[in-house]
Amino acid sequence: MAKFIVIEGLEGAGKSSAIALVRDFIEKKIGTVPVCTREPGGTPLAEKMRDLVKITDESDPLCDEAECLLIYAARAQLIANVIKPALNRGQWVLGDRHNLSSLAYQGGGRQLMPLVESVSAATLKGFKPDLTLYLDIAPKLGLERAAERGALDRIEQQAVDFFERARRTYLNLAATDDSIAVIDASQSMAAVHKDIIAVLQVQGW
Amino acid sequence: MAKFIVIEGLEGAGKSSAIALVRDFIEKKIGTVPVCTREPGGTPLAEKMRDLVKITDESDPLCDEAECLLIYAARAQLIANVIKPALNRGQWVLGDRHNLSSLAYQGGGRQLMPLVESVSAATLKGFKPDLTLYLDIAPKLGLERAAERGALDRIEQQAVDFFERARRTYLNLAATDDSIAVIDASQSMAAVHKDIIAVLQVQGW
Ligand SMILES: Nc1ncnc2c1ncn2[C@@H]1O[C@H](COP(=O)(O)OP(=O)(O)O)[C@@H](O)[C@H]1O
Ligand SMILES: Nc1ncnc2c1ncn2[C@@H]1O[C@H](COP(=O)(O)OP(=O)(O)O)[C@@H](O)[C@H]1O
Ligand SMILES: [Mg+2]
Ligand SMILES: [Mg+2]
Repeated sequence: MAKFIVIEGLEGAGKSSAIALVRDFIEKKIGTVPVCTREPGGTPLAEKMRDLVKITDESDPLCDEAECLLIYAARAQLIANVIKPALNRGQWVLGDRHNLSSLAYQGGGRQLMPLVESVSAATLKGFKPDLTLYLDIAPKLGLERAAERGALDRIEQQAVDFFERARRTYLNLAATDDSIAVIDASQSMAAVHKDIIAVLQVQGW
Repeated sequence: MAKFIVIEGLEGAGKSSAIALVRDFIEKKIGTVPVCTREPGGTPLAEKMRDLVKITDESDPLCDEAECLLIYAARAQLIANVIKPALNRGQWVLGDRHNLSSLAYQGGGRQLMPLVESVSAATLKGFKPDLTLYLDIAPKLGLERAAERGALDRIEQQAVDFFERARRTYLNLAATDDSIAVIDASQSMAAVHKDIIAVLQVQGW
């Protein structure tokens, strides 16, 4: 059975390089590369929704509820048109962020947990990744790394306490869900990658 | 207290000309024109979400859940940035469609009522119009009228049974909600307008 694996974490946690590592691991294991997605986005229409989340419109600031609902619209579209069709064809899927990001950012960061939980339940109806690798990092360190990539977008510009709430939410949810592995992303890249491989190797796939 | 009045109904029911009538009624009554909105849309960002709902992308067909969530994202944005600020300033608001359209189209038409009900409750948190005028018409007659306006969009192109389900939902909801008045929109425009004025005149405003 094809698996759906997701990499999660705050800005600058090291998701992009973890994706490359896990993609190579999967390719070696099953002989084909997984379908790689990013969220919000990953389909032509979902990428347009992502743009609406990322831009700053001074005259019409995106309200928190609309941000949350746009992200779930993009997720529904990605699941329907990319993730489920791939899994049904037997292709593995590797996601750069998925639903846990909404619980952490919109639920924890924006403090909209009741909205996030009800939209999440009604939209996903139990659909979830087989494994989530959560790269845990202090917001300050992650944002320093991310800043080196270039200008920060509307979400990356949130105050540090937004990311502190998001991190706490990630950790709380990981503590009660066996399918989420916490990786200490403050380590060197080599040590992070070693930990990721160790988690992948103990899976019963 | 400023009021929020909404005109609802299937395509071609006569909402646009009813809006003009009600706008004039309000202007005569309170001396200023109401803020007029349309849904989905009504803010710069919400209009971009409307575009995503209306276009047909053959390579990435909008799934029903994403359609529903996009419409609620647009609604949240409109309420936050237009409707509530206007009402708080003491301005009346007149809407061309609002939440009842989602219950009828996405809930009834698309048969997604559980999603619609949970997103609706979590997003609106009890916010609702003071009065909704629902223009009731048989789908076939409404679509004939609408076709005369020009090409039909992605939603207007749905099969007649989609609109039959939407109509039944409108009527069922109107039957149990005193703030929804049903107007027989199959009548002549003069008769429809007479019925609308009669409803407006019995309000305790
Ligand atoms: N463990 C690490 N130690 C030091 N720098 C790292 C580490 N992991 C990633 N980086 C660097 O930090 C920056 C952000 O990493 P990136 O993978 O883009 O994060 P994310 O995708 O989670 O936002 C990149 O320049 C990356 O090379
Ligand atoms: N009661 C009526 N009888 C006949 N034609 C009507 C009536 N109400 C509206 N129309 C016409 O039907 C078409 C669609 O009406 P419109 O107000 O645009 O509908 P909606 O905004 O509900 O889609 C317009 O050409 C309009 O002039
Ligand atoms: Mg990245
Ligand atoms: Mg109209």
